[in-house]
Amino acid sequence: MSTTRPSGRRFDELRAVSIERGYTKHAAGSVLVSFGDTRVLCTASVEERGPAWKKEGGWVTAEYGMLPGATHTRGRREAAQGKQSGRTQEIQRLIGRSLRACVDLSALGSCTITVDCDVLQADGGTRTASITGGYVALVDAVASLRRSGALKRDPLFGQVAAVSVGIYRGVPVLDLDYLEDSDCECDMNVVMNDAGQFVEVQGTAEGHAFRREELDALLDLASSGIRELIDAQRRALAS
Amino acid sequence: MSTTRPSGRRFDELRAVSIERGYTKHAAGSVLVSFGDTRVLCTASVEERGPAWKKEGGWVTAEYGMLPGATHTRGRREAAQGKQSGRTQEIQRLIGRSLRACVDLSALGSCTITVDCDVLQADGGTRTASITGGYVALVDAVASLRRSGALKRDPLFGQVAAVSVGIYRGVPVLDLDYLEDSDCECDMNVVMNDAGQFVEVQGTAEGHAFRREELDALLDLASSGIRELIDAQRRALAS
Amino acid sequence: MSTTRPSGRRFDELRAVSIERGYTKHAAGSVLVSFGDTRVLCTASVEERGPAWKKEGGWVTAEYGMLPGATHTRGRREAAQGKQSGRTQEIQRLIGRSLRACVDLSALGSCTITVDCDVLQADGGTRTASITGGYVALVDAVASLRRSGALKRDPLFGQVAAVSVGIYRGVPVLDLDYLEDSDCECDMNVVMNDAGQFVEVQGTAEGHAFRREELDALLDLASSGIRELIDAQRRALAS
Amino acid sequence: MSTTRPSGRRFDELRAVSIERGYTKHAAGSVLVSFGDTRVLCTASVEERGPAWKKEGGWVTAEYGMLPGATHTRGRREAAQGKQSGRTQEIQRLIGRSLRACVDLSALGSCTITVDCDVLQADGGTRTASITGGYVALVDAVASLRRSGALKRDPLFGQVAAVSVGIYRGVPVLDLDYLEDSDCECDMNVVMNDAGQFVEVQGTAEGHAFRREELDALLDLASSGIRELIDAQRRALAS
Amino acid sequence: MSTTRPSGRRFDELRAVSIERGYTKHAAGSVLVSFGDTRVLCTASVEERGPAWKKEGGWVTAEYGMLPGATHTRGRREAAQGKQSGRTQEIQRLIGRSLRACVDLSALGSCTITVDCDVLQADGGTRTASITGGYVALVDAVASLRRSGALKRDPLFGQVAAVSVGIYRGVPVLDLDYLEDSDCECDMNVVMNDAGQFVEVQGTAEGHAFRREELDALLDLASSGIRELIDAQRRALAS
Amino acid sequence: MSTTRPSGRRFDELRAVSIERGYTKHAAGSVLVSFGDTRVLCTASVEERGPAWKKEGGWVTAEYGMLPGATHTRGRREAAQGKQSGRTQEIQRLIGRSLRACVDLSALGSCTITVDCDVLQADGGTRTASITGGYVALVDAVASLRRSGALKRDPLFGQVAAVSVGIYRGVPVLDLDYLEDSDCECDMNVVMNDAGQFVEVQGTAEGHAFRREELDALLDLASSGIRELIDAQRRALAS
Repeated sequence: MSTTRPSGRRFDELRAVSIERGYTKHAAGSVLVSFGDTRVLCTASVEERGPAWKKEGGWVTAEYGMLPGATHTRGRREAAQGKQSGRTQEIQRLIGRSLRACVDLSALGSCTITVDCDVLQADGGTRTASITGGYVALVDAVASLRRSGALKRDPLFGQVAAVSVGIYRGVPVLDLDYLEDSDCECDMNVVMNDAGQFVEVQGTAEGHAFRREELDALLDLASSGIRELIDAQRRALAS
Repeated sequence: MSTTRPSGRRFDELRAVSIERGYTKHAAGSVLVSFGDTRVLCTASVEERGPAWKKEGGWVTAEYGMLPGATHTRGRREAAQGKQSGRTQEIQRLIGRSLRACVDLSALGSCTITVDCDVLQADGGTRTASITGGYVALVDAVASLRRSGALKRDPLFGQVAAVSVGIYRGVPVLDLDYLEDSDCECDMNVVMNDAGQFVEVQGTAEGHAFRREELDALLDLASSGIRELIDAQRRALAS
Repeated sequence: MSTTRPSGRRFDELRAVSIERGYTKHAAGSVLVSFGDTRVLCTASVEERGPAWKKEGGWVTAEYGMLPGATHTRGRREAAQGKQSGRTQEIQRLIGRSLRACVDLSALGSCTITVDCDVLQADGGTRTASITGGYVALVDAVASLRRSGALKRDPLFGQVAAVSVGIYRGVPVLDLDYLEDSDCECDMNVVMNDAGQFVEVQGTAEGHAFRREELDALLDLASSGIRELIDAQRRALAS
Repeated sequence: MSTTRPSGRRFDELRAVSIERGYTKHAAGSVLVSFGDTRVLCTASVEERGPAWKKEGGWVTAEYGMLPGATHTRGRREAAQGKQSGRTQEIQRLIGRSLRACVDLSALGSCTITVDCDVLQADGGTRTASITGGYVALVDAVASLRRSGALKRDPLFGQVAAVSVGIYRGVPVLDLDYLEDSDCECDMNVVMNDAGQFVEVQGTAEGHAFRREELDALLDLASSGIRELIDAQRRALAS
Repeated sequence: MSTTRPSGRRFDELRAVSIERGYTKHAAGSVLVSFGDTRVLCTASVEERGPAWKKEGGWVTAEYGMLPGATHTRGRREAAQGKQSGRTQEIQRLIGRSLRACVDLSALGSCTITVDCDVLQADGGTRTASITGGYVALVDAVASLRRSGALKRDPLFGQVAAVSVGIYRGVPVLDLDYLEDSDCECDMNVVMNDAGQFVEVQGTAEGHAFRREELDALLDLASSGIRELIDAQRRALAS
Repeated sequence: MSTTRPSGRRFDELRAVSIERGYTKHAAGSVLVSFGDTRVLCTASVEERGPAWKKEGGWVTAEYGMLPGATHTRGRREAAQGKQSGRTQEIQRLIGRSLRACVDLSALGSCTITVDCDVLQADGGTRTASITGGYVALVDAVASLRRSGALKRDPLFGQVAAVSVGIYRGVPVLDLDYLEDSDCECDMNVVMNDAGQFVEVQGTAEGHAFRREELDALLDLASSGIRELIDAQRRALAS
């Protein structure tokens, strides 16, 4: 199957992915992740107490933001607006759930790890880049807690990464950039672990619904893309 | 395959579904939908002008709320809190997108239809009941616009309905009630049209990821459940 | 004295009143009250701790809301607006004060009862219906606390009910509906107990002030109307 | 009938009332009103355009505030809290309605007059002092509009003043101060015009309901007190 | 050097300054300060507990507000807007820092003193009048804490006062009024203590930057003006 | 004069300064500025319409934010808090005023340029880095407007840069880093133009007031530091 994607990529080709650890110095984990021109700074901060609403065990949560200048047309600053948009809240809830899917909270003691994902430059796929890079920041934060003796055993099991897929001009494609995303009526964000299991599947078809076989093709594409991302995370963590 | 669901239902059995039109008198469409003990009042109100941010064509949007007394433990009133929770916004965005999936907005003239889904009693599946009942309210609102001559042609194509599925004690089951929902680590909300195509798929597996064959089984269950709901909508609209 | 009210009612005639207990299943008290086409769902929820600002004794409070589709023209959802209007706050403060007028708070132990009054359909008199139905929900909630052994003695003394009165086309009338309410320059909400004493009197004459003898006539009308409502509450509680 | 009020006043005696016009220089009307130790600065500001929500005619509205240092225990600043309390909104709505009761809005052209009532020192009765002083500020603002030629005819008809009454230790008394107000279970705010008619009657009996003859006695007291306040307004306006 | 200021004042002449203590009766310190037509009510309220965020020692803080009718054109009420403007916050932070510059917080025990500065009438220089009058209210509040035995030693060292300076039509002038302030491109607020040292210097030159020798001349003017204000504070405190 | 600064810098030595243009691709100007470990991303976005409140001419404004992970202890996200802190507003107002000091707004046509300064990593001096880098982003944005023909003449006159100075352990020092800033009782932020004139001077001495000769020494230090920064801006713009 061939296609003409705006970027010239093959239908099953990820954008260039880079995962740079230690990008800033204060947070326990700090990762600049790029999926092509999409660049997200993921920092994981550690607080040695659990959340107020939880009697025991720790917690992992995420917050998401987009710098006003990150998009073609300047976005309004949510802090100045006085609230986070529904979209922002939906994304940060997704990131938090996805990262918790590889954490044994009871092993986190009474620690809270907050993963902040701030988009410096947006070109489609900011939430999947956030999850993929946020995982690496989370690993670094857990390592710092392990080194300091705050955690008796490793709370992490497995890896988590995410990618988007969609049907662009009739063809299922992997890792949509902004041009594809805005010209595509149905897309799906998929989060998987390193055992090839599904953590989140969020497919949306506003206007054009997708058939079962299309859905199946998209899930296949996502699975293979996520295998590559899992490898990229491993290489970054090994360096 | 057999299971022991708390309600005694078969794994592929919907709860008793009822769709009562004309429940209140002011809104153009007003439907009380019940999925077992879950009861949602869906009203569709019509305004003969498009949204401010859109130059032409109409719009369909949804808002969602849960009465404080609708749940076991009284929930806090969002109006008194001063904001809608992330969960509420996520749900109402889902309802809006789902309903727009069967509307030709360019045929809506410059009308806005707002579908309010207010949960009177909650027992799991409030968002899927909202979509299923909201569709019927939307049809009634469109009919009133057609009668008044505000619309030249029918903006609706096809039907939309929704159901939840999940893996309860190892078994894929259809239409989870509250007891199942709170004891189930992965569930999925599925929205489909009457052509059997997918409009939204939102699967979440916090803690326990699901395998591809589980995902496939859940999608099959959802498809058959939605066929029944589509029939229930038709019967309600015919009466 | 004769009049031609839009509804054909006599000047001293209430609308059909119905009080349906157990309308929903989770709240300790749940009442659907109707004054003609005005329908309010009143739920009384129980929390076994007093309010934070009070060192001892319990508390009874109320919250009020109107579903967006309850009125002729869709109202804006207060949760989406980010605040409750002045009107809403005024009404819920009135309901709370009225209900507390028949409760010995020191006998409530350290329980808080919250009475939520949510208007499903509005046709005038939503606040008086809320008080009248809210009282019945409160009785059911107190009974549940008595059954569970949380309260040593009965905190309730007497009954409380409410009705509106006003001068419509020169004639004092009882229990105004929406048509009368919007065409009437002065109206009064009266809350009384079963001893025939006044708990709240709120008369407003924007534009046309009322003379003392008019005020007297309105108070007489209210007294007789409230006697009927007190009876209706008794019948509902006896069933 | 005799009583021992904390202040030594007779049961039907107002506190010393003073109404000082031209207290500040920028607003069209600026009045410092004192009811004993209660001191409220009422300014009436004029804007030569009607409110956005009204197609024609002018508008009179009021806002109310209490300086944090005005009370025994410092109150929290509502601007810092981010919202006006329910009590504040209830009071400013009452002031606005009361003042509009003596204004022919159609004669106000397209002017908006805003009466700000800010309590410098509180000792009970701030809302009734606000109405009584606010009326004088309103008259001055209307006079400035008349002088500038903005209004063709006088929009004011009659006067409006307000006083509180209540049952203190079993005796109906006029114009409650803070000591009486906090030790009194039922009180009533009464707004009347110079024809002796009622504009607003707001009686509240939290805990101890009042009998019809008590209500009557309170209304009598209020009527005579308001006659004195109407005279005080006239003297202030004549000076 | 001569100039023609709108008020006829010499370039180095303050407006008439008055400092009236005991203006209201509830707050521990209550001062009405006037710099010409600018009038600010400063009240200092005492709470016998430190701020939540501070483990030991007391705190002095300030809040600032402008009554809506205080200015030529009515300002919007910040409480109704739902937030304090950036300008308001900037001013109240400045007042708080300035007053803390003469307080030994460790000697304040666990007391918090809040100085509220509410502008009754504005004619330029409201923040400098607030600091100058607020200091006197603070002294009175500390004295009341000393009398009650709450403080073992005097937490105050030195005095603090403030004045504005600016370049008006090419000439450095002292204590700008509204007419000068609005026609002047650079101005500076200076806060000093009674030892002639600088506590705050805030110079702003939007549009026209100032040269070093102009800056020096302004600082000289401010120093001499503040000496006079320090004397006025002393006289007020001695009376 | 010698000193032992934590960084080993001489008292009059700036940190390493770098100004990297074109850091992100969407905004008209995008600059990553570093003052040592302080890193701020400054983007200048262009909108071809003036602000709503201004009848003619353009506008330059600034917004400021700090990423939660930018500091030692994670800061709370202002968007999630629902408002910008007083500190944030004060800083962004300062940046905006400083940048406008070198812009002829009447030559900006009806364009608005918004300079967003987002701190990626904080180590003291974030506001002065923001102004210094924001100026360069502004120049790039103006150049893009000139290229597109939107501006007939150059609205920029002169350059603007900023630096902090303070007294650290008795010695006036230039460009404080976090360690110095937190251990220093008086500091000053100075904004100057390339003619050596002062645009803003903000000195604060909470606790320890500074003498006139100290103030003079700090102004001298700032002047020389800003000359270097002006050169650094020129080099960046020339490359």
